[in-house]
Amino acid sequence: MPVELFHPPLDAVELDAVYAALADRHRRAAVVRLARTPQAEVPCAALDLPGAKSTRSYHWKVLREAGLVLQRSSGTGMLLRLRPDFDRRFPGLLDNLLALTDGQ
Amino acid sequence: MPVELFHPPLDAVELDAVYAALADRHRRAAVVRLARTPQAEVPCAALDLPGAKSTRSYHWKVLREAGLVLQRSSGTGMLLRLRPDFDRRFPGLLDNLLALTDGQ
Repeated sequence: MPVELFHPPLDAVELDAVYAALADRHRRAAVVRLARTPQAEVPCAALDLPGAKSTRSYHWKVLREAGLVLQRSSGTGMLLRLRPDFDRRFPGLLDNLLALTDGQ
Repeated sequence: MPVELFHPPLDAVELDAVYAALADRHRRAAVVRLARTPQAEVPCAALDLPGAKSTRSYHWKVLREAGLVLQRSSGTGMLLRLRPDFDRRFPGLLDNLLALTDGQ
């Protein structure tokens, strides 16, 4: 049976956790990649995150609990996509991140 | 003699440090206040930051080293203002923060 992972309700998503999640360049790169194809589900393994498996799992958990991504298990792996309601909670934040990332 | 505090050169200001600095609601509130009157120098004591003096000093250091504020000593206290070149480094980031804060 697939593991049901915790996702916070939208109104419990807070800027403290969002900015903290984005303060890591690897997590930020993953969010940027997901935000560029917001409808697409991407295997976690396809997102280029360094470190041991436990480290990568931790990064996904931080992003999920910050309300930035949806994560579900699929077969032996995990799939991630951008959380579609995030922009409603914090409008423009991800657009700004994308613009900053394009500019660098 | 006034203490000269370290301020990173603009091109050494990184998103990791900026987002980490903004991940604390008290630091974020101070930045929002400074960003609303970007030309004004504000005494640190006037910015409503809880905690012991050493804790407050730590918060100012985090904001200064993240490139968000300029800090200088004046008499027996410290003055802070928004770093005027920050928006050149990360255009729109603070505008977005202000918009999000207005909306809450």
